[in-house]
Amino acid sequence: MKHYEGYLIDLDGTMYRGLEKIEEALQFVEKLKEHGIPYLFVTNNSSKRPEQFAQVLEDFGLATSAEQVFTTSMATANFLHEKKPGASVYAIGGEGLHSALTEKGFQLVEEKADAVVIGLDREITYEKLAKACLAVRNGAMFISTNGDIALPSERGLLPGNGALTSVISVSTQTEPIFIGKPHSIIVEQALTELGTSKEGTLMVGDNYDTDILAGIQAGLDTLLVHTGVTTRDMLIEKMVQPTYVLDSLADWKLNK
Amino acid sequence: MKHYEGYLIDLDGTMYRGLEKIEEALQFVEKLKEHGIPYLFVTNNSSKRPEQFAQVLEDFGLATSAEQVFTTSMATANFLHEKKPGASVYAIGGEGLHSALTEKGFQLVEEKADAVVIGLDREITYEKLAKACLAVRNGAMFISTNGDIALPSERGLLPGNGALTSVISVSTQTEPIFIGKPHSIIVEQALTELGTSKEGTLMVGDNYDTDILAGIQAGLDTLLVHTGVTTRDMLIEKMVQPTYVLDSLADWKLNK
Repeated sequence: MKHYEGYLIDLDGTMYRGLEKIEEALQFVEKLKEHGIPYLFVTNNSSKRPEQFAQVLEDFGLATSAEQVFTTSMATANFLHEKKPGASVYAIGGEGLHSALTEKGFQLVEEKADAVVIGLDREITYEKLAKACLAVRNGAMFISTNGDIALPSERGLLPGNGALTSVISVSTQTEPIFIGKPHSIIVEQALTELGTSKEGTLMVGDNYDTDILAGIQAGLDTLLVHTGVTTRDMLIEKMVQPTYVLDSLADWKLNK
Repeated sequence: MKHYEGYLIDLDGTMYRGLEKIEEALQFVEKLKEHGIPYLFVTNNSSKRPEQFAQVLEDFGLATSAEQVFTTSMATANFLHEKKPGASVYAIGGEGLHSALTEKGFQLVEEKADAVVIGLDREITYEKLAKACLAVRNGAMFISTNGDIALPSERGLLPGNGALTSVISVSTQTEPIFIGKPHSIIVEQALTELGTSKEGTLMVGDNYDTDILAGIQAGLDTLLVHTGVTTRDMLIEKMVQPTYVLDSLADWKLNK
């Protein structure tokens, strides 16, 4: 195995599964720390603030600071700040999205928005979707934090943000700009944040369609771990294989 | 103009626009009555019961009975009764859909449904969409009352039932069976209800993409009136033109 100067690491399915920690992954990150190798957690979950994810890892016994977490809400706010600084924004989503946008100085409005941003919202209503459709038809930039169609839960696969986003895209016949994995916007930003090169950074995750494709499309080496979504059988059908495939991160050797 | 033995007539945009009546259309139906020519109102609006639509027309001065209204909720209940009599149904939608299903004897359930039916629901929630996705992934038959992507309102175009339906179809990667116009299921049933032949029945409506396409696909002659959605400019781009195009139903002559 090649030496990597930095790691981008997925959270759900990779570091933990819901409320259950993945011990091998936590030990792997402890080793990165010991060796002083930079890493950044990168998540498509837009609903929480980075300090909340850090707390989840802390609760699993891994000392983590908010600066080590990069969410698609942060990437969305950065992207919008670059493309439309000072825009008024109509945002559908959770606390993580709203705080990322306001921290970047965006004004959140209900009408006449310059941009519409949608992230997973478990309090979705017809009125929220109606406002988003009206704004997009009126020319607002249309951004979605991520295109995940399904969300694993103990009940089964629930609708993801990509499925909610489709209400607006189908109704207005306008495609959104997707920020999260597998799209490269979040990966490019995470690399800048981490300060490592594409060639020297490994993307680690459990989901081929988001984590691994994001790495492949951004030109990074990738490591798929079978601790979450993508099984061996699902992987067989994929045209482009990950650089590495492991049952768990216990099998990964750090070469210094 | 040819003589037609029966008429299928759209409601919103054809007989009225929201709260505003279309006088020429009301007079046209009065003439059908005088001549004893059978007609049936056919609507993609799943939210109300037929007697409620009849009351709307009554309020505009046109005596109408519930039997003269055929809704996509009724067509949905008929279709399901034919395909899966006795099925347990998880239904998302308004009063019109729920009453059409229970009148056909279907048991409405929250879990372990044999069929999922979705009609426009302005009280849509994440939990409703989640239940629908779980049932469809579990093998339930998936039916949508209609695929309308947008709904005209005084505020602009709001999300239609086809847009809401896409949450379930995108998340589960399962296409629904659409019942309403332009799909032929509703037209075939409406013809049976009216008791006239395909060749002898005219489909009348304001919306090319629903009313007129429904007629074309079911093999009926069609009459587009420019009193609602489809403008002259929009019509130019259509490959298959309606049999007749009029500014209003005042210009239609009944040949006996």
